[in-house]
Amino acid sequence: MTQKTVTAGVILIGDELLSGRTQDTNLSTIAKWLEPLGVQVGEARIVADDADVISETVRSFSDRFDYVFTTGGIGPTHDDITADCIANAFGLGISEREDAIEMLRERYELSELNTARRRMARIPDGASLIKNPVSQAPGFQTNNVFTMAGVPSIMRGMLPDIEHRIKGGAKVYSRTVTAEGIGEGDAAAGLAEIEKAHAGVSIGSYPFFNADLRGVNFVARGRDEAVLDAVERELRALVASIVV
Amino acid sequence: MTQKTVTAGVILIGDELLSGRTQDTNLSTIAKWLEPLGVQVGEARIVADDADVISETVRSFSDRFDYVFTTGGIGPTHDDITADCIANAFGLGISEREDAIEMLRERYELSELNTARRRMARIPDGASLIKNPVSQAPGFQTNNVFTMAGVPSIMRGMLPDIEHRIKGGAKVYSRTVTAEGIGEGDAAAGLAEIEKAHAGVSIGSYPFFNADLRGVNFVARGRDEAVLDAVERELRALVASIVV
Repeated sequence: MTQKTVTAGVILIGDELLSGRTQDTNLSTIAKWLEPLGVQVGEARIVADDADVISETVRSFSDRFDYVFTTGGIGPTHDDITADCIANAFGLGISEREDAIEMLRERYELSELNTARRRMARIPDGASLIKNPVSQAPGFQTNNVFTMAGVPSIMRGMLPDIEHRIKGGAKVYSRTVTAEGIGEGDAAAGLAEIEKAHAGVSIGSYPFFNADLRGVNFVARGRDEAVLDAVERELRALVASIVV
Repeated sequence: MTQKTVTAGVILIGDELLSGRTQDTNLSTIAKWLEPLGVQVGEARIVADDADVISETVRSFSDRFDYVFTTGGIGPTHDDITADCIANAFGLGISEREDAIEMLRERYELSELNTARRRMARIPDGASLIKNPVSQAPGFQTNNVFTMAGVPSIMRGMLPDIEHRIKGGAKVYSRTVTAEGIGEGDAAAGLAEIEKAHAGVSIGSYPFFNADLRGVNFVARGRDEAVLDAVERELRALVASIVV
């Protein structure tokens, strides 16, 4: 029985990512966390703090992928507009929720719960909350869209309360063969032949340049580990035939 | 006289970025390089090695932004499909070009220029080449789209031969005020007021958590440095009023 491929789209929200001021690391964290669950990231977008773009991206990704993950824009300040954009994307209302306020109360005294902090309890109608053990303000799930914090440590803290909601599909395994001192061009023809000979396996070629050293990582990905083992052997033979 | 805002879209191509195996740094490099040229990155997409998605993304970004930058997928192996996708996006032919072969000849002996390496001289019709002082295989410009290598050191090497082709617009300046030991929620109301009082200035609020330390960076961005200086003073006063 062939398992279906389950895919995810990732939306990274925030002007600071586009200015180059902040280096995103959340995509890599999410992708590596999804892999053993049997979910492949199909595309990621880094979008500005622009309500129309966020809503439109959420809508199209929700249609196109099995799961969607957003990071960023759910804090207490005026530039935190993600919750409203999610509500808008699905035509839902949005209001302050008592269960979200209770979570915030684990962190804040009632006197500290000013209007700004209460914004973090505004949740699209019908969404289910995602626990935040790091800073308490919850994320939330709306249909197939999981909305998380942008700060990496807080985002990571939310993943355990998402894991049980994911129904993954076929797992993709990989084998990596590293070849030092050769160029991609030396291996290209053999590489294409090996890929062609093994249906369901894709082979990527990733050159690296460490100061003086050059080399290539060949990464074979596929669902069948026995086939991948055969591919790995053929890749090693190919590399051995080039390095003289 | 008001200068127009000039924008760029960035397309990062490669399965390895979506699997989390490779951490992108090119977006940040491109954004920081564009800022002093007066170009703002409006959106970035990380797409798979999928010909239809790449072509469609190039087409829509070329319409939507003044400039488009792609990285990745211009090497010699079978998974390097970017040049064909760019040609397809604009309905152009593509063929091996003599001037690109000459660039490759600076690196490779004629006997090393096998079919795979010659792929790197396949350029969409009418495109102008972008010099690659690191590994010689050129990038190219097609209309407003600049196609560059994915390996960061090679990509950076191509930027000098692109700079003279960019006509930037209004420059955006920024001022950062760092506040240790306060939460975003304490500053949110004052922050929104300051932003509202200064047209053309946007203020972002970026919390950080370093082990025990928490704090916020407030980043004001705008085109008028005198206004930004005033905003910076107000932000400092706001922070001083919170830290007691």
